[in-house]
Amino acid sequence: MLAKLTVEEFAERLAAGTPTPGGGSAAALAGTLSASLLRMVCDLTLGKEQYRAHEEAVRGIRRRAEALKKDLLALVDRDAQAYDGVIRARRLPKGTPAEQEARAAALSRANMFATETPMTVAEACAVLMTLAVELAHKGNSNAVSDVGSAALLAYAIEEALTAVFSRMNGR
Amino acid sequence: MLAKLTVEEFAERLAAGTPTPGGGSAAALAGTLSASLLRMVCDLTLGKEQYRAHEEAVRGIRRRAEALKKDLLALVDRDAQAYDGVIRARRLPKGTPAEQEARAAALSRANMFATETPMTVAEACAVLMTLAVELAHKGNSNAVSDVGSAALLAYAIEEALTAVFSRMNGR
Repeated sequence: MLAKLTVEEFAERLAAGTPTPGGGSAAALAGTLSASLLRMVCDLTLGKEQYRAHEEAVRGIRRRAEALKKDLLALVDRDAQAYDGVIRARRLPKGTPAEQEARAAALSRANMFATETPMTVAEACAVLMTLAVELAHKGNSNAVSDVGSAALLAYAIEEALTAVFSRMNGR
Repeated sequence: MLAKLTVEEFAERLAAGTPTPGGGSAAALAGTLSASLLRMVCDLTLGKEQYRAHEEAVRGIRRRAEALKKDLLALVDRDAQAYDGVIRARRLPKGTPAEQEARAAALSRANMFATETPMTVAEACAVLMTLAVELAHKGNSNAVSDVGSAALLAYAIEEALTAVFSRMNGR
């Protein structure tokens, strides 16, 4: 399980000349970092007198950031598994018409699964951006640069996954 | 050392309601992922007949991506240490004029160090972007979406660190 590797080992596995883990897993991990930063800023806000008016809203943001952090961390592995499925399907025999048909069906299923994962990551990051915007106004102002980092990470991932996966893969 | 935590533990440490690790460490790790993706694409390119014309250029990109991957991973820790220094300086006694002067000097040094780290991360990411642009043209076209993810991650970090740290911290 990729989430159980050390940060150093994960970077090395990512850098290795094998198709997985690849961009999708990296994006899911970067999304996890964004969600984690938002939860941190919530915890640096809650219980502080001067932010009491936003206590309920920040508690809501914290709950959603925590859920997205868990989802995105799980997607680090799921993306690699999904793409491994595509590679396995590509390697199926294609000697006979029956084999070709079976391979095409397997490849179609695997591709659908492999496209779903980055799209789920992109959707989670779109939600993180809206949470970040709200938190920039209601959270601890000492940590506003952390909110900004979280927002820009989420933006980049959402952008990378929707734009890159759809445009570049189709060329 | 943060790089020796598992990915899951690192995310939890980042999410904790303590000032460090914060946005700077998250950015350095996201930069590490970007550099790792570029090295992966180089390794998926080198030795392949159809990219032989770019062999030398891709080897150069690989060498630089590998060096930046190591630098950025080290910056995950260095950013947290630098910011811890700022917090320690802020907590120095300020009862007497002599203490106030010593505290101001310590805070000034700590702030300088703490600003240097994200700027180094931003510079590394600016280099990653130029490497990604070159690799998008010269690297394995099956992995172009990974190059795109790497480029957008690097872009977001560079943007987050230069814009957010300078504009938002100054408000």
